[in-house]
Amino acid sequence: MQASRTLAELEQTTDFINRHIGPSEDEIEAMLTELGLSSLDELLATTVPAKIQLEAPLQLPEASREEEALHYLKQVASENQLNKSYIGQGYYGVITPPVILRNVLENPGWYTAYTPYQPEIAQGRLEALINFQQLTLDLTGMELASASLLDEGTAAAEAMGLAKRVSKAKKANAFFIDENCFPQTLDVVRTRAEHFGYEIIVGPAAEAAEHEVFGALLQYPDATGAIPDLAPIISALQDRNAIACVAADIMSLLLLKSPGELGADVVLGSAQRFGVPMGFGGPHAAYFATRDAFKRALPGRIIGVSKDSKGNAAMRMAMQTREQHIRREKATSNICTAQVLLANIAAFYAVYHGPEGLKTIAGRIQRMTSILAAALKSAGLGTLNDTWFDTLTLQVDDREGILERAREAGINLRLDGEGGLGVSLDETTTRADLKALYGVLTGKAAELDFDELDETARDTGIPADQRRDSDYLTHPVFNQYHSETEMLRYLKRLENRDLSLTHSMIALGSCTMKLNATSEMIPVTWPEFANLHPFAPVDQTRGYGKMLKELGGWLTEITGYDAVSMQPNSGAQGEYAGLLAIKKYHESRGDSHRNICLIPSSAHGTNPASAQMANMKVVIVNCDSDGNVELEDLRKKAEQVSDNLAALMVTYPSTHGVFEEDIKTICEIVHDHGGQVYMDGANMNAQVGVCRPGDIGSDVSHLNLHKTFCIPHGGGGPGMGPIGVKSHLAPFLPNHPLVPIEGSREDMGAVSAAPYGSGMILPISWAYIRMMGGQGLRRATLVALLNANYMAKKLGAHYPVLYTGRNDRVAHECIIDLRPIKAETGVSEVDIAKRLMDYGFHSPTMSFPVAGTFMIEPTESESKAEMDHFIEAMVAIRKEISEIGAGDLDEQDNPLKNAPHTQADLRDWQHGYSIERGAYPTRWTRDAKFWPSVNRIDDVFGDRNLMCACPSPDEYR
Amino acid sequence: MQASRTLAELEQTTDFINRHIGPSEDEIEAMLTELGLSSLDELLATTVPAKIQLEAPLQLPEASREEEALHYLKQVASENQLNKSYIGQGYYGVITPPVILRNVLENPGWYTAYTPYQPEIAQGRLEALINFQQLTLDLTGMELASASLLDEGTAAAEAMGLAKRVSKAKKANAFFIDENCFPQTLDVVRTRAEHFGYEIIVGPAAEAAEHEVFGALLQYPDATGAIPDLAPIISALQDRNAIACVAADIMSLLLLKSPGELGADVVLGSAQRFGVPMGFGGPHAAYFATRDAFKRALPGRIIGVSKDSKGNAAMRMAMQTREQHIRREKATSNICTAQVLLANIAAFYAVYHGPEGLKTIAGRIQRMTSILAAALKSAGLGTLNDTWFDTLTLQVDDREGILERAREAGINLRLDGEGGLGVSLDETTTRADLKALYGVLTGKAAELDFDELDETARDTGIPADQRRDSDYLTHPVFNQYHSETEMLRYLKRLENRDLSLTHSMIALGSCTMKLNATSEMIPVTWPEFANLHPFAPVDQTRGYGKMLKELGGWLTEITGYDAVSMQPNSGAQGEYAGLLAIKKYHESRGDSHRNICLIPSSAHGTNPASAQMANMKVVIVNCDSDGNVELEDLRKKAEQVSDNLAALMVTYPSTHGVFEEDIKTICEIVHDHGGQVYMDGANMNAQVGVCRPGDIGSDVSHLNLHKTFCIPHGGGGPGMGPIGVKSHLAPFLPNHPLVPIEGSREDMGAVSAAPYGSGMILPISWAYIRMMGGQGLRRATLVALLNANYMAKKLGAHYPVLYTGRNDRVAHECIIDLRPIKAETGVSEVDIAKRLMDYGFHSPTMSFPVAGTFMIEPTESESKAEMDHFIEAMVAIRKEISEIGAGDLDEQDNPLKNAPHTQADLRDWQHGYSIERGAYPTRWTRDAKFWPSVNRIDDVFGDRNLMCACPSPDEYR
Repeated sequence: MQASRTLAELEQTTDFINRHIGPSEDEIEAMLTELGLSSLDELLATTVPAKIQLEAPLQLPEASREEEALHYLKQVASENQLNKSYIGQGYYGVITPPVILRNVLENPGWYTAYTPYQPEIAQGRLEALINFQQLTLDLTGMELASASLLDEGTAAAEAMGLAKRVSKAKKANAFFIDENCFPQTLDVVRTRAEHFGYEIIVGPAAEAAEHEVFGALLQYPDATGAIPDLAPIISALQDRNAIACVAADIMSLLLLKSPGELGADVVLGSAQRFGVPMGFGGPHAAYFATRDAFKRALPGRIIGVSKDSKGNAAMRMAMQTREQHIRREKATSNICTAQVLLANIAAFYAVYHGPEGLKTIAGRIQRMTSILAAALKSAGLGTLNDTWFDTLTLQVDDREGILERAREAGINLRLDGEGGLGVSLDETTTRADLKALYGVLTGKAAELDFDELDETARDTGIPADQRRDSDYLTHPVFNQYHSETEMLRYLKRLENRDLSLTHSMIALGSCTMKLNATSEMIPVTWPEFANLHPFAPVDQTRGYGKMLKELGGWLTEITGYDAVSMQPNSGAQGEYAGLLAIKKYHESRGDSHRNICLIPSSAHGTNPASAQMANMKVVIVNCDSDGNVELEDLRKKAEQVSDNLAALMVTYPSTHGVFEEDIKTICEIVHDHGGQVYMDGANMNAQVGVCRPGDIGSDVSHLNLHKTFCIPHGGGGPGMGPIGVKSHLAPFLPNHPLVPIEGSREDMGAVSAAPYGSGMILPISWAYIRMMGGQGLRRATLVALLNANYMAKKLGAHYPVLYTGRNDRVAHECIIDLRPIKAETGVSEVDIAKRLMDYGFHSPTMSFPVAGTFMIEPTESESKAEMDHFIEAMVAIRKEISEIGAGDLDEQDNPLKNAPHTQADLRDWQHGYSIERGAYPTRWTRDAKFWPSVNRIDDVFGDRNLMCACPSPDEYR
Repeated sequence: MQASRTLAELEQTTDFINRHIGPSEDEIEAMLTELGLSSLDELLATTVPAKIQLEAPLQLPEASREEEALHYLKQVASENQLNKSYIGQGYYGVITPPVILRNVLENPGWYTAYTPYQPEIAQGRLEALINFQQLTLDLTGMELASASLLDEGTAAAEAMGLAKRVSKAKKANAFFIDENCFPQTLDVVRTRAEHFGYEIIVGPAAEAAEHEVFGALLQYPDATGAIPDLAPIISALQDRNAIACVAADIMSLLLLKSPGELGADVVLGSAQRFGVPMGFGGPHAAYFATRDAFKRALPGRIIGVSKDSKGNAAMRMAMQTREQHIRREKATSNICTAQVLLANIAAFYAVYHGPEGLKTIAGRIQRMTSILAAALKSAGLGTLNDTWFDTLTLQVDDREGILERAREAGINLRLDGEGGLGVSLDETTTRADLKALYGVLTGKAAELDFDELDETARDTGIPADQRRDSDYLTHPVFNQYHSETEMLRYLKRLENRDLSLTHSMIALGSCTMKLNATSEMIPVTWPEFANLHPFAPVDQTRGYGKMLKELGGWLTEITGYDAVSMQPNSGAQGEYAGLLAIKKYHESRGDSHRNICLIPSSAHGTNPASAQMANMKVVIVNCDSDGNVELEDLRKKAEQVSDNLAALMVTYPSTHGVFEEDIKTICEIVHDHGGQVYMDGANMNAQVGVCRPGDIGSDVSHLNLHKTFCIPHGGGGPGMGPIGVKSHLAPFLPNHPLVPIEGSREDMGAVSAAPYGSGMILPISWAYIRMMGGQGLRRATLVALLNANYMAKKLGAHYPVLYTGRNDRVAHECIIDLRPIKAETGVSEVDIAKRLMDYGFHSPTMSFPVAGTFMIEPTESESKAEMDHFIEAMVAIRKEISEIGAGDLDEQDNPLKNAPHTQADLRDWQHGYSIERGAYPTRWTRDAKFWPSVNRIDDVFGDRNLMCACPSPDEYR
C-alpha cells in the first residue's frame, strides 16, 4: 500500500473521486455524526445485509486522473478508422451545426435536465420538443406526432403494436413487411412479433395487400433507393382494414409527397440525419406520427399544449395515462424514455435551416445522386433503381475489384445480399467525393464535367407526380432563427427556462441524477466516436470494439455476471431483452411452457409491461407494510405456479428504498421452482462495490447507464439499458442481422436497430468507471447511502419516512409520506412539488411507488450544503402547511396552492402575502432566483383538448 | 460565373456568410427601402468616397463551408508536433479542469461578454475578477492587485514604468534587470526602456543595489531554477529609494515565502499555469500587485467593491480616471484591455482546487523536481542550481547526444546560451515522464525506485527559511466549490448574472461586438493549437507557421499593406509597435529628430498615450463641427512641425462614425512633410472589402482582431492587435530574442513576451476570413453600413444624430446626442444607459468621442428584428423622458433615475409607478427577462473607499 499511496500522492490519481462525490471530508464527518456513526464502514455494516456484502474489492483498474483516462481513450478511439460512408440504411453523414453542437449537445444546461415531469420549469425543452412534433407533422403530413421513440427499428415495432390494437381486421394475426425495408428494422420487428405471437410476412411492397394482415410496413424510399408508388398499396391495405405503416426517410420528405398525403395511417423513421451524428448507431431520435383517431394507442411521449392557471398557453407531457407505468400489465408497449436531447437537436436543425434551407440541402443530395447516376450511366454502369432520392443500387460485374478500390480510397459501400452494391449520399457529400466515388465504381479516373452532368440529370430520380408541392414548416419558429446570432439567443432563451443540474439538485427517487462529469462527456463528440456508421466493417471499428470490451468486462465484474449485451438502448429495452433471454433459455431446455412472471406489487410499472411484451403472464406478489416482498406470499405463489414459473422480476434495493434482508432467500425460492431471477437495475447505484446482483442470486439485470453510470438524462433521454447475464443465459442475448455478435446464438433476433445500442454515449460510462476505479465506485455508493440516510434523518423530523430497513436505515433513497398532510390540510403532494419550484428546486419523484409520497434520492454527487438547502426548503414548506392548517394562511390564497409563482404574478400581484414570501422565500432565491416560466399547468384541460403542434404565436404568452 | 454558382449551389459554400450576417434578404430589402435605396451597391456609392473605393475584388480564397474550413485547419494543426515540453521560461503544461474548459473557455455566455463598463449587468465576471485579485494578493503578499495585464513581459515593463513614477530616486535614470530573468521579459523591458529613454543594467541579482537605479526587476525563482534570497537585495534597493519589482512564478508562491513578506514593492508574473493552456504563447493573464500607496500608478484595470443605491456591496471597475483613455498624452501606459477570460480561468482554477488542492499540486511539482535531481545526482549529473521549485539547470558534457535522444523521445528541453540544459516540470508531469527524462538526460535506462528517491529527496530544493508558512486563500469562495457539481453551479450562477451576446445586441460604438461563430471558436481548444510552447523548435510548429502565413497574407491583402506582425497582443500594443516602426524607420534614414505626432482632437485617448510611450510629442489637430479633421489646421500644423514631423495618427472611418471625404488628402499632406501615417484600425469593420488603408495612403495600422475579425471580447480581453505595414516599414516590425522573426531587423526588440502574440486565438480570425471569402467579407461590411444607417435613420427621429457625411450617411456607427435631453429634463446619458438594462440591453458606448452622447455600432451580425427591439426600447425611453419633462413622471422617482430595477426592488417596491412599467416595459422583457443583479452602483464611493479584495460573505448582497 505504501507504493500505491505514493503513486496517488505523486500523480493525484484519486482526484476525480473527490470531484465526483459531492460532500467534502468534513461534510461526510458531520453527516456521520448526525447519524451517530463513526465511519462509512459502520454505515455499511448497519445498512446492507451482511450476507450479501462483497468480500473482496472489485477487480477493476485503479482510479485514474481525468486527463490520463481521456488520453488513453483518445488512443483507443483513434483505432476507429473514419472511412467515408455511403452505407446508408438509416444512418447518414451529417453536419451538426456548430452552434447546436456546442450550445446543446455539449452544454450541461441541456444535457443534465430531467424528463419534463415538472413542466413549469421545463418550457424550454418542451418548446423544442413541440417543434420536433411540428416538424414531424409537417414532413409526414399526419395529424398527431409524438416526442420521439428510440430508433427506427423499435418505432416500426411499435407501429406494428399500434396496428394490431387499432386495426379492424381483428382476425388477422399477420403483419406484412416490405422486403426492401432496412434489414435491421425487419429483424427488430420480427423479434417483437415472435413474442407477441404475430406472423410476419415478407414480400414485395406491391403485394402487401395480397395477404390477410392487420398491418403492413413499407419503406419510403426503400432500401434499394427506389421511390415506391405508395398510394395504391396503402389504399389496397386499407380496403382490407389493414393499417398502412410507412418508414420514411425524413430528408427525402422535403422533396417527396408526404406519406400522409398518400393516405398512410402511421409514419415513422429516424430523425438522425437532421444533424445528429451517426455515433456508431445512436443515440438518435425516431419520429412517429399517426391519425388523431389513434391517439390513445400512440406509443411514447407526446407533448401537448395546455394552459396555465393564468390562462396562458403552456406545454406539458400529454395523456400520460397511456404510459406503461400506469397501464402496467395491460400495456402494449413498455417504452418509457424518449430521445429528448436528440429530438431537440433534430428540431433545432430544422429551426436553424428553415424550410428553404432544408429544401436546399435535400435538393442538393438528390441532385448529387442524379449527377452520380448520370455519370455512372455514361460509363456504362446502370442502376437497379430508376427512381431515387439519395441511394443508388448498382448491379456490378467486378464487385471484388470495386471493393478493393474502395478500401484503398477509404470509402465504405453498402453490400446487398444479392451481389449488388449500394451508395447513399448525404449532406456531407461534395463534388470531390463524387469524383472519388466515380473512380472507385468505374475504375476510371475521368474528370467529371459537373455542369454538363447536372444538365443531363436535371429532374431525374423523382417522378413528377411524386414530387412534393405542399408547404411545410410555415410556423414562425422555423422562419426566424437563421443567423447564428439569432439561433444562439433562441437556444439560450430556451435553456434558461429549464431547471437542470446546473442550477440545483434534482433528487429524483429511482432516477439517480448524479454528476455527468465534463471529462465523461468530452469523448462523446470526438469525431472518432461520433462519425462512425454502425455497420462499418469490423476492422474499422476496433476502437469501439476495445472500448466495449473493456466496459463490458468492468460491468460484469461490478454485477457479478458473466456476459453483457450493449444492445438495449433504454432500461425498458433491457428488461425486454432480459426476459427474452430467460424465455429462450427455458425453450432451449424444453420448458416452453414456463410463462409465469412473478412481480412484487411495489414494482415499477415497466416490469409488468415488459413481461406482457415477452408474452408472460404476470402474477403479483404481495409486499408487507415495510415494502418488502412477503416471503410467505412468494413461497405460496411460486409453489402454485411452479411448473410454469419463468421468472421473478425484483428491484434491489427495493423500490421502497430498502435493502431487503431476505433477498438471497427470495432468489433461492424462485430457483427452487425452476424460475430465473430478473433483478431490475434501477437501484444499482446502491449496490456498486458493495454487493453484486450475480452474487445475490440473480440471473439477469439491466443496467441503467443513464442512472448509475453517469450518462446524462438529456432532458428525457437518451438512456442506455445494457443487460448482464449469468453464463447460462449468454447465448440468448440479442444478436444483429448485419453485425454478428460474439457469443449470441445465430437465431437470436435484434431488440434495437443498432448492434451495440447507442454506442456514442458508452464512453461516458467507460470514463466514469475508469476514473473512479474500484475504490472510487465503492466510496460513491457509501456516500450515496450516507446522503440518503442523512436526508431521511433530517426530513424525518418533519415528514414521516415511510419505509426503513434494519436499524432504521434507508438505502440510497427514502420515501416521505405526504398523505397525512393532505388529510389534515388539503395540501397535496402536487402543491408541495410546485412550491419547491419557488424555492429553486425540482420536485422529487412524486407518488411512486406509493401515491401521496415523495421519493428522494440525493445521490453521492450532492454536497451536504446543497442538501441542507433542500432540507431547509422542505422544512419551510412544512411550516407554511402548518400555517394553513392553523388558519394563519388562507386555505386557497396561500403560497402552496398558488405555486409556482412566476414573473407574470409579479406584474400583477394579487395575493394576501408578500412577493418576498411568495417568490423569494430564502436567501439563495434572493441571490440567484430560478424562475418557473408559466404558472401551474392544467393537465386535464390539455388532455381534453389535445394539441400537439406549435401554438400560433398569439397563443404564446 | 455559371460554374461558380453551380459550385456554390452544389456545395453550399456560401452558407456561412448568411449565418454570420444577421439580417435576412427580406430584412436587407426592407432596410434599403427605409433608406430610399435600391441596393447595397447604391448604399456604398452614396457612403464611401469614390476615390478610395476598391476597384477589384480582394484576392482571397472563396468562401468555404464551416466543416470544410475546420477540416482543412485540422490538417494544418496536425502539422504541429506536440512534444512533451520541459522548456518552461514562463510557459508550462497545464491541466485545464474540464468543467472550466467547457463551461467557461468554450462557453459563449462567458466569452462573448464585453468589458464590464456596465457593472450592474456584469457582476458575474466582476466577482471572478475580484477572485483573481484576491488570489494575487494572497499569493504575492501584497496590498493591491489589478485585474490582469497582457503577459509577464509587458507586466514587467509596466512595473518599470510604475517604478519610475513612484521612486524617490528622482535622479536615477537606470533600471536594473536580474540577468537570470526570462530572456523575453528582459527584451520587452529593454524595448520599452529604450523609448522611454531609460538605461538598462543587467547583472546578477545580488548586485542590483550596487547601481544608481530607480528600480530593479528580480526573478523568483530565477530562470536557472534557483530560489534567490530576495530579502537582503530588496532591502538594499529600498535603502537607495529604488523600487524592488519581483517577477514571480505563481505556482511556486504556494510553497515559497511571498515577495510581499520579503518586502517587495511590486510583484508580477504570469498566471498561465493556473489552468490556461500554453497556446503557443497566449492569451494568458499576467497578475500585478503593489503597495496601496502606489494605487494611482497601478497600470491596467482594477475591480473594486463599492455599494449600490440600496447600500448593498457591488463590484465595478475602480479608479478609471487613471486610465490611458482619460489621461491621453499624460499617460505613462497605454494599456487598455485586460485578459479577463484568462484571468477568470486562473481564478476559477484556484476556486476549484482551493488552497489545499493547490498546495498539493505545487508540492507534487516540487517533489517530482527533487526526485529528478536526486536521480540525476546518483547518476553523476549535477545541477547548477542547488535550490529549486520546478526547474533544474544542468551542466552537461554531451549536449548534442542528449538533444538527439530527446528528439527521439519527443521531449523538448530548454537550451541555455552557455551550453547548459534546463528542465522545468509542471502539473502534467508523471512518473513515466520522469523515467523518460532520466533516460534522455543520462543515456541510461535504469528503473527508478521512486519511493527511495522520494525519501532521499525529502525537503530538498527549498531552504527551510524560504518555505512559506503564512496562510492563503482563506476566503470562503476558495473553500466551497471543490466538487464538480458545486463548481458547475457556481460558474452558471456567475454566468447568469452577466449580459452577453447570448442575450441581446451589444451595440458598442468602436468595439464591433459581432458574431463569434462557434466554428471559429472550436479550433482554439484543439490540443494541437492549445498545447504548444511558444519557444518550441520551429520544425515542431509548422502548423502554426502555415496558419500564420495564410492569415498574414490575407490580412495584407485586406489592408493593402505588405507585411504583418502578429506579435502585439492588444490594440494598444499594436499602436505602440506601429509607432516604434515609424520611429525606427526615421532613425534609419538619419531622421532621429522626427518626434512630433499629429493627432486629431477626436482621437481615442490611447493614440496620444501610445505616442507618449514612443517618446513622441503630441500636437493636436482640430476637427470641424462634423467631426472631420480640419484640413487647414492640419496643413498649418504639419507646416509648423515639418522638420520634426514623425507621424499622424488617424482613425478611419473617423471616431465620429463618418467616412471623411478628404482622407487621401490628409495622408498626402503628412507624407509631403516627411511624416508617416498611422491609421488606427479600430474602425476597420467599415473598410474590409470596400477600401484599404494601404491604398488610401496609410503606412501602418493595427488590426483589432477582436473587433473586425471575430475574436470574442472575452468579457474584457483577450484582444489581438497585429500590425500591417508598407514594405519600407517591414524591417522595423518587432523581433524576438528566442524565436527570430523573418523579415524583422535583428536589432528590433520585442513588444510582447511571445513571438506571435496570442497564437491560440488566431485560428478564430483565420476561420472567419476563410469561411467568408472575399465576397462574404465585402458583404459583411456593406451590411454593417446598412445596419448603422438604418439605426441612424430610425433613431434620428427621436434623438439627434450628431455627425453624418455625404448624403447624410454615417459609416458603420452613429453618434446620437443626449445633451439636449439633459439640459431640458436633467436625465443624463448614464440614466439612459442604466434604463436600457431594464429593457434587456447593454448600453452603447457612452460619452466617447463626445461627452453626453451614445455611439452605436450594430455590426452586420445583428438582425433587423433585434435592432428593431433596440430602437423600440430607445423610443420608449424617449417617451419616458418626455413624461418627466412634462411632469407626468416624478423628477426623481421615475424609471430612468431608478434604473436599473432589480429583483431586490420587487421584494419591496417603493415607486410611484408599477412593477410592470419599471421592470417589464416590453413584451420581450415579459417573455425573457434579463435581470441586473444589483442596483445602480456608486462609483465615487468605491473610488474613495478603494477595496479590491473579495468582500467578506456578510458584505455580499
